[in-house]
Amino acid sequence: MTEAVGTSATRIHEGDTLWIERRGAVAIIWLNRPDKLNAMTFAMRDEIVAAFDVTDADEAVRAVILTGTGRAFCAGADLAEGGEAFAPEDGFDGVPPDGGGLVALRMYASEKPIIAAVNGPSAGVGVTMTLPADVRIASATAKFGFVFARRGLVPEACSNWFLPRVVGIAQALRWTLAGAMVTAADAHRAGLVSEIVDADASVVDRAVEIAAEFTEGTSPVAVALTRQLMWRMLGADGPQESHRLESDILFDRGVSADIREGVTAFLEKRPPEFVDSVNDYRGRFDW
Amino acid sequence: MTEAVGTSATRIHEGDTLWIERRGAVAIIWLNRPDKLNAMTFAMRDEIVAAFDVTDADEAVRAVILTGTGRAFCAGADLAEGGEAFAPEDGFDGVPPDGGGLVALRMYASEKPIIAAVNGPSAGVGVTMTLPADVRIASATAKFGFVFARRGLVPEACSNWFLPRVVGIAQALRWTLAGAMVTAADAHRAGLVSEIVDADASVVDRAVEIAAEFTEGTSPVAVALTRQLMWRMLGADGPQESHRLESDILFDRGVSADIREGVTAFLEKRPPEFVDSVNDYRGRFDW
Amino acid sequence: MTEAVGTSATRIHEGDTLWIERRGAVAIIWLNRPDKLNAMTFAMRDEIVAAFDVTDADEAVRAVILTGTGRAFCAGADLAEGGEAFAPEDGFDGVPPDGGGLVALRMYASEKPIIAAVNGPSAGVGVTMTLPADVRIASATAKFGFVFARRGLVPEACSNWFLPRVVGIAQALRWTLAGAMVTAADAHRAGLVSEIVDADASVVDRAVEIAAEFTEGTSPVAVALTRQLMWRMLGADGPQESHRLESDILFDRGVSADIREGVTAFLEKRPPEFVDSVNDYRGRFDW
Repeated sequence: MTEAVGTSATRIHEGDTLWIERRGAVAIIWLNRPDKLNAMTFAMRDEIVAAFDVTDADEAVRAVILTGTGRAFCAGADLAEGGEAFAPEDGFDGVPPDGGGLVALRMYASEKPIIAAVNGPSAGVGVTMTLPADVRIASATAKFGFVFARRGLVPEACSNWFLPRVVGIAQALRWTLAGAMVTAADAHRAGLVSEIVDADASVVDRAVEIAAEFTEGTSPVAVALTRQLMWRMLGADGPQESHRLESDILFDRGVSADIREGVTAFLEKRPPEFVDSVNDYRGRFDW
Repeated sequence: MTEAVGTSATRIHEGDTLWIERRGAVAIIWLNRPDKLNAMTFAMRDEIVAAFDVTDADEAVRAVILTGTGRAFCAGADLAEGGEAFAPEDGFDGVPPDGGGLVALRMYASEKPIIAAVNGPSAGVGVTMTLPADVRIASATAKFGFVFARRGLVPEACSNWFLPRVVGIAQALRWTLAGAMVTAADAHRAGLVSEIVDADASVVDRAVEIAAEFTEGTSPVAVALTRQLMWRMLGADGPQESHRLESDILFDRGVSADIREGVTAFLEKRPPEFVDSVNDYRGRFDW
Repeated sequence: MTEAVGTSATRIHEGDTLWIERRGAVAIIWLNRPDKLNAMTFAMRDEIVAAFDVTDADEAVRAVILTGTGRAFCAGADLAEGGEAFAPEDGFDGVPPDGGGLVALRMYASEKPIIAAVNGPSAGVGVTMTLPADVRIASATAKFGFVFARRGLVPEACSNWFLPRVVGIAQALRWTLAGAMVTAADAHRAGLVSEIVDADASVVDRAVEIAAEFTEGTSPVAVALTRQLMWRMLGADGPQESHRLESDILFDRGVSADIREGVTAFLEKRPPEFVDSVNDYRGRFDW
């Protein structure tokens, strides 16, 4: 289904290649080059990174959905330059950072949970940039093209780190060594997406429902810190590092307004009203 | 089912908040504050750590079961202090170590395999402290409350390290960012528990059966070393570290009485009789 | 089914304990001590390591299958020395490196994808040496003996690192702490093997089909680099290291003949004809 993408009244940010819609506590980043199947350009790369700066800074936003306008999610890197499409970007002394990786690292650092709502075909960076999302769901019309080896390329956007941690090393190797095009059903079976949405239903509406799991009844600061802890400890050498960080955070948070409220509300059997600010906690812990 | 918890004759250790029962080669640690749903106090934390010192030191013990008396497994931190329940513990200069983490790290270091027999509802540290167990099984009446974000808290007990490694990063994020309450069936589907025991059967009796897999026909030293190797290499940078440690251990163990007996018994098609002592091996390898 | 093992015309390498058959772009390493169930000796260990040097050096080889002649895959270490079978190897000052680990590390470093075609029973190092393969498939007659603890041994061949990453920590502990003998069906359920081949069909023929996924339409250099990236990043501390490596490789490869051809062929809707040489890329990146 082609999705409705919000009225101008609900748009909180406009870029050349995307816009951001707000629905209640949820921000929806709409990749918006539908005639190019939302193929990634340097401009889109920069605007995605900036979009997550917007969603992190805005305390009214408690969760983020990443999706595309039109029938595709993202067809991968824009190939307008043909065989030169992957020539190094100008203006760098030395090695230019991989653009997909800049997007992935920004998403990894997001303070708000991210849901990738894959509304249709995706390939290359269109697939790999979804890996640092916390949840991936797909329309039945979605496809996932791990096509790198068929173009002479290697997987990027830090996907050599993310993919085996999401679907397991055996599945990650099978897809990437083959340059495979994966159906929504196979992606679901492998755990790449957690559910499939019927082709005639809205994958974004379903993502909004899932976002409510994260935004209703939870402490924004607790969610932001949990997201950081869980992703960062995925690369830690052992539980000792987790123990050190958790001790630091509990020492600070143990006397926070949110914990007092969370425990009191629980004991009084009423919904909590959390007041602590995510923006106040930024940079507070030595990850 | 409320479990039978052993006669005084079979109790090998008594604490204020737990006791240890021995059944053959298996020690059963019974958390025992049933009127408080076995909620964790500082005293219980210290007694759990001490209980694993007891089970490690006693060579008659070959495996450990962790369970609770009454209808709950462990309801999480005791909230008797209300909104101050998570205020920093007294008596520390600087950051007090997270108590759940002290329990988790002690279990991680256990020389004997651990089976968590989750006999009923668990929440908070009641869930996270089961993650360093080697096996988790649950009564159909069990629930798993990853409730931290709903109390303003973050996951603790090193669970930011353990949980994604047990159930995968996508499932770990989904539960913790939502502060989810998870049914036994969902826990089973996700691999958090390996099996569900009927509500009217004994989860402890089933755990005793599983323990026999580890205690019958195996070398105690081999089991202790395997447990250490496998958990520690879960955080290692690459296979090279595994190779170094395995070479060290095989160099030492290759001429051990247990290997001679293990190979000879196999060739003679008879059950082995192992003689090497776990206590003699403590501290022998530079992990 | 006992497999056909190639005519002399198709053998590209002969050793005392194995030979290598070539079928098109695929090399098949046949472990060949069938009267000993292909049990591992020091000589076989050295010949397996050397076999992967052959397959890496030969650019006509695009994928490698590891299998056994006769009814077994590999029964584990040769026990001809009885109780002394695991005594330290002569000729080393200090700790001799574990032989299974030498095989595993050589496979880990392979530039060509590896498929373990487990044609029958395997045990000990016969199981653990398959873990650095990219794909494992099994005949219905296969068995997987994680028997170490029953012989007084610990898992080796770097399997303390590999096994939890392939099947998850809970399954890895359950099998190794028990010294379990695992059926093909259970291995499939746990993800140790990705599929089971009927007992009366050829597991090698099926492996050759799978190998075609990796060899047809893909860039040999891209496949070799992907294999290295994916395995190495499995032990990396975080996505930042992946980003650095991927940026280095894309910087170098972005102007390569293979990427120009891959993109151009895609835009022209024709099969690509890749020309870059794996041998030229050896040692090019600072992993």
